[in-house]
Amino acid sequence: MTVFQATASAPVNIACIKYWGKRDTKLNLPTNSSLSVTLDQDHLRSTTTSRADPSFERDRLWLNGKEEEIKEGSRLAICISEMKRLRREMEKNSNEPKLSEFPVHICSRNNFPTAAGLASSASGFAALVASLAALYALPASPSELSLIARQGSGSACRSLFGGFVAWEQGSLPDGSDSLAVEIAPREHWPDIHALICVVSDVKKGTSSTSGMQRTVETSPLLQHRIKHVVPERMRAISQAIIAKDFDTFARITMQDSNQFHAVALDTDPPIFYMNDVSRAIIALITEYNRVSVESGGNIKAAYTYDAGPNAVIYAPKENIKEIVELIVNYFPQAEPFKDPFGLFGNTGVTEGRVVDGFNSAVAKKFEIGAVKGLIHTRVGDGPRRLGEEEALLGSEGLPKSLA
Amino acid sequence: MTVFQATASAPVNIACIKYWGKRDTKLNLPTNSSLSVTLDQDHLRSTTTSRADPSFERDRLWLNGKEEEIKEGSRLAICISEMKRLRREMEKNSNEPKLSEFPVHICSRNNFPTAAGLASSASGFAALVASLAALYALPASPSELSLIARQGSGSACRSLFGGFVAWEQGSLPDGSDSLAVEIAPREHWPDIHALICVVSDVKKGTSSTSGMQRTVETSPLLQHRIKHVVPERMRAISQAIIAKDFDTFARITMQDSNQFHAVALDTDPPIFYMNDVSRAIIALITEYNRVSVESGGNIKAAYTYDAGPNAVIYAPKENIKEIVELIVNYFPQAEPFKDPFGLFGNTGVTEGRVVDGFNSAVAKKFEIGAVKGLIHTRVGDGPRRLGEEEALLGSEGLPKSLA
Repeated sequence: MTVFQATASAPVNIACIKYWGKRDTKLNLPTNSSLSVTLDQDHLRSTTTSRADPSFERDRLWLNGKEEEIKEGSRLAICISEMKRLRREMEKNSNEPKLSEFPVHICSRNNFPTAAGLASSASGFAALVASLAALYALPASPSELSLIARQGSGSACRSLFGGFVAWEQGSLPDGSDSLAVEIAPREHWPDIHALICVVSDVKKGTSSTSGMQRTVETSPLLQHRIKHVVPERMRAISQAIIAKDFDTFARITMQDSNQFHAVALDTDPPIFYMNDVSRAIIALITEYNRVSVESGGNIKAAYTYDAGPNAVIYAPKENIKEIVELIVNYFPQAEPFKDPFGLFGNTGVTEGRVVDGFNSAVAKKFEIGAVKGLIHTRVGDGPRRLGEEEALLGSEGLPKSLA
Repeated sequence: MTVFQATASAPVNIACIKYWGKRDTKLNLPTNSSLSVTLDQDHLRSTTTSRADPSFERDRLWLNGKEEEIKEGSRLAICISEMKRLRREMEKNSNEPKLSEFPVHICSRNNFPTAAGLASSASGFAALVASLAALYALPASPSELSLIARQGSGSACRSLFGGFVAWEQGSLPDGSDSLAVEIAPREHWPDIHALICVVSDVKKGTSSTSGMQRTVETSPLLQHRIKHVVPERMRAISQAIIAKDFDTFARITMQDSNQFHAVALDTDPPIFYMNDVSRAIIALITEYNRVSVESGGNIKAAYTYDAGPNAVIYAPKENIKEIVELIVNYFPQAEPFKDPFGLFGNTGVTEGRVVDGFNSAVAKKFEIGAVKGLIHTRVGDGPRRLGEEEALLGSEGLPKSLA
């Protein structure tokens, strides 16, 4: 008996031009275009196995080992039914088995802990869509699939591509032109590395779904950002990526992170995602860049913050060692730095240090735990089709861990 | 021999519509109008004694017991010479003694410690101008004097009036229409009280003088604020003050504080004045208002933050007791609350508490010292002419403390 099953993984992406605000909440149509860097699945990924089988009673989904209800009308249910619809269209003109009529079992897992505070909805919905596309053998392009991932979680559409990815806001009411496109593949500029600083926070911030709509409804500044700031930044940062111009890329990335948090603060009541640790990391990167620029050099790093206190620092690979030492100098670590690129040889990071000319007074030194951990990664590829040996569903079509 | 000497005091003011950005840095001409509440000099004030004497060698000034150099072309020198100019004009058509030709000794003191983090430049320059106006017996109105105080420190112009004061931005290149006007005197709405939460901060923030110009140069959002947001807010909050409509007054005050900090954050590199303690106080006041509004009541308090982490909470007097208890509940105090209005009788604030229905999880409880102190005051009057017994200069024309 044939088993219809496919496994795929999908990457995390971190935006340089931020998505904040929907013009259509049901379809996840944004008020502005956005642009992100896809991170390497070797380090951070969601993996999903999907199986279609006529013997299954109903669609079921397990996330990180726990079964989740697929509620009618939920974003999850919409994505699954949209993928079935694409399969059904294909079946009309072929002799393919009618997989679209079979219930599916879906098992998904992130290789990073929820406690890391990294949004998993983008990689999760991208992996879901990628695994169903593989299961259904759809001829759909990543941009076409991004239309469906977008309905699961807006920023998920950008995880359908590797490299540097724009989410074009589109203008059609049905959202059919609000999709992801590749600005450049990872191979174009593989030197872009990322250091994620996982920041501890006592308080759960406002969810981004409710937060962004409150901004749309109450921030007078958001409209100006949407109409007059983002379009120009999208153009300029795309050009910078094509030209591998890190200075411009970094400047715009930092400015747009700050402007996103500015419109969150201009919301009524105001929304804060960054805390004193986030602010201190901004001060450190600002000073690190100042030292370089004032001695005739280039901008060496760019920070960006999503809807939480974690910093993601983009930098050319050659600067990451200095940046790790800088962060560790102010934020002592309980655990040794995991050094996937072998920057520090056998000794590891023995202690932090700052570059010559650095004004140490721009931030105070924090206690162990203020930055809980550092993850070093880089620009990565798009969703991967994985082999059977990586499948998360066992022979019965149930999660292997439960089998 | 006649002694030509006068002493005056002037109040602190805290803006509800914030001044941030100059269109002329020499003349201190702002990019937008602003509006403030004058606080009561019974609690916070600058006091200044000025004396003119032909035997003095040169103009001299002592601030808080320490002599300060009056540098040529400095804001201080400009204010003194502008006041002498007004005196000289008066002398032309009268037989008054030629005081404008005598050097002056000026002694000034704030009754609040610099460590409290309250800007003293507004009350300081207002007291300087008020004492020289008294010394010179000038017939100038507070609005006319505000033109000179403005050149010392922009927001000082608003301290020439009591009550509720607008600083009209004006449009003339020479600044002659950029002055303070009274929206309503304190007697119109004496019920507006203020609780200042003095917040500890490890790091000195960007000075407002350099910060605001960086915002003018780099923030794309500031221009929208200036052109489209502030004019409407000025109109609406003035109307709210006339109508004693605390709900509208409070909403606009909080929105404008947040928008000022939003444009600071939209600056490159970004400027932060609020810290985690400031954020927690915002969360507390937001929740305190939510409980009231959702049970059919009114907004009970409004927070506002200047270029630093201190919160100023405006509220009708009847709510201050609850607000003190709320703040003390999350920010235990080392020193007993100074209770100038006798809200707590003989027992004082024994311990903090929150109102019924308050979600205590909106903030964590902080350590002693996070909020270093609480100052309870209220809307106050404009500059006061004081008697000889309060003069700061002794018989030799030197500071009494040095005599």
